[in-house]
Amino acid sequence: MTPYESKTGATTVIALDAMGGDYAPDEIVLGAAAVASPSLKVTLTGRRAEIERCLAEAGSSSAKYLDIVEAPEVISFNEDAVKAVRAKTNSSMVIACREVAEGRADGVVSAGNTGAMLAAAMFNLKRIKGLKRPGLCAVLPTPGKPTLFIDVGANSEVRPIHLLEFAHMASIFAQDVLEVTNPSVGLVSIGEESIKGNDLVLETHGLMADSPHLNFYGNVEGRDILRNVVDVVVTDGFTGNVCLKLMESTSSLIVEEVKKAANSSLKARIGGLLVKKELMEFKKSIDTEEFGGAYLLGVRGLAVVCHGNSSRKAIASALKYAARAAEQKLIGKLEERIKELQPV
Amino acid sequence: MTPYESKTGATTVIALDAMGGDYAPDEIVLGAAAVASPSLKVTLTGRRAEIERCLAEAGSSSAKYLDIVEAPEVISFNEDAVKAVRAKTNSSMVIACREVAEGRADGVVSAGNTGAMLAAAMFNLKRIKGLKRPGLCAVLPTPGKPTLFIDVGANSEVRPIHLLEFAHMASIFAQDVLEVTNPSVGLVSIGEESIKGNDLVLETHGLMADSPHLNFYGNVEGRDILRNVVDVVVTDGFTGNVCLKLMESTSSLIVEEVKKAANSSLKARIGGLLVKKELMEFKKSIDTEEFGGAYLLGVRGLAVVCHGNSSRKAIASALKYAARAAEQKLIGKLEERIKELQPV
Repeated sequence: MTPYESKTGATTVIALDAMGGDYAPDEIVLGAAAVASPSLKVTLTGRRAEIERCLAEAGSSSAKYLDIVEAPEVISFNEDAVKAVRAKTNSSMVIACREVAEGRADGVVSAGNTGAMLAAAMFNLKRIKGLKRPGLCAVLPTPGKPTLFIDVGANSEVRPIHLLEFAHMASIFAQDVLEVTNPSVGLVSIGEESIKGNDLVLETHGLMADSPHLNFYGNVEGRDILRNVVDVVVTDGFTGNVCLKLMESTSSLIVEEVKKAANSSLKARIGGLLVKKELMEFKKSIDTEEFGGAYLLGVRGLAVVCHGNSSRKAIASALKYAARAAEQKLIGKLEERIKELQPV
Repeated sequence: MTPYESKTGATTVIALDAMGGDYAPDEIVLGAAAVASPSLKVTLTGRRAEIERCLAEAGSSSAKYLDIVEAPEVISFNEDAVKAVRAKTNSSMVIACREVAEGRADGVVSAGNTGAMLAAAMFNLKRIKGLKRPGLCAVLPTPGKPTLFIDVGANSEVRPIHLLEFAHMASIFAQDVLEVTNPSVGLVSIGEESIKGNDLVLETHGLMADSPHLNFYGNVEGRDILRNVVDVVVTDGFTGNVCLKLMESTSSLIVEEVKKAANSSLKARIGGLLVKKELMEFKKSIDTEEFGGAYLLGVRGLAVVCHGNSSRKAIASALKYAARAAEQKLIGKLEERIKELQPV
């Protein structure tokens, strides 16, 4: 983790919910301290005394690029998302979103209650003009290059036009923020042929195939999502959410079982030790913290929703990608594309 | 693989598509030869000469429990499912289904084109009286005990009543065929609370909660599917199909990468060898061939749809479970339950 360096000389400000996450505020503040720089200023929202204690303990040299905005309340993981956001207007999460809404920050990052962060961003940040639905885009650490997966839970009921909007927004994000050239887009279905799928997919397939500026590959199946068949995988927020949680649990279950196997006898333990370095490298290559979290695309100001168990590394990644997006004027590009999608 | 033994003294006949599958007819015929017995007779459908050659090569002692019905045509993997089933009425697959439809067999097994086998079973076997939709039920080899997952692709558009039917049918299958006591049922959603989900799930949740004879647990999330949270996981055929293919590819991808890691240096290779036995045992414990294939519940006569790459072991398992189902009078029990679900 190195301090952020701007490619354009611009200075970006990202608001960070310092109190959200299993390891808040320590890991959150340390993530910010690791990447803050003359070109990336971070506004930490939360209880000033606690944040200052973390900074003092870290003895970070980047403190001058960190700003604190007092927020007395905290939204916890077991609160009802919508109610909490409405009631706790002085929470670190809501205040972080307000920093963006009122123009003092370009993006916002939180590892707090996912549902609450989605609600806080939706309520506080304006939607891009003409856009019907923002979508939550996860970045999957697939071998070689990342795969974008949208929507992973912002919308449990969608229409074809929403999926088309997701495809365009995630393509622009892939190209401009993750530097994927001419990203290809796949539509999740139950067969590769264009005639396979439910009514939603069948209609969306036609829309995507006819849409300019979209490098549409066609349908992809469940087995293709992690296999780098396409760069951007599009589905509704119900299917996407179920799939995201399923793949996280499948891989952690298998890693657990492999560990158990390598601990089941003395011989196996020795074998496990000999192969440990390589296994750790593999584990690192599928590290979800590499890309920080999921990106809510379609609101004015990028909102990054991090895993509750985010370490400083995930927070640092999220801040860097949020800064990159601001520097690349992502929101302006999304606005332009959404405008082109409007019926004339 | 041992010859099938009846628990009740009954004799069961299962029709087997000898020509369907990547390793047909050899592996298919050998699977049948392994389990055929005085209480499980297998009717092999396909090209008699090829089947006889396989049997002669195997020199099986169970040949007297195997019967051959000539079928000159074969449906291949790249054919359009519905068209192929309509056109090739003398294919090994269609003829195997007809053995059940015309009362000469109690169930049917095929490792051929999945879509075609679904279509062949739906067209040829009658639906259980009063049932709205048959569902395709996969058996996931989760640690400790299997998890049933329905629907994995028979219905891409469903209504709440269809999901309720799936839940009841899979519960009876779990209890009577897989010997799971009082199986619990979970409904796939994007949050555990009953108010979370799309419109389909919200309405289904209420139906399931109120349904007698159903051990309804509530909603489960993607991360719960493989974690033995419930015995029966219910979802629509779109989500189920995407999830099934996703989990298969996730686990094979990780196993590939672990293998690669254990081959990347001499030290790692030695380590890999030392831990190999334990890893193979783990791999065996998640062996999808253990349960043969996916079971189409709701037609009169159980239809088992096996993976294209099925070995003799998968075929043998499928035949055994199909025989067990027939012995347990599964279809009669499903009919009774579906009758109880009818509005009075």
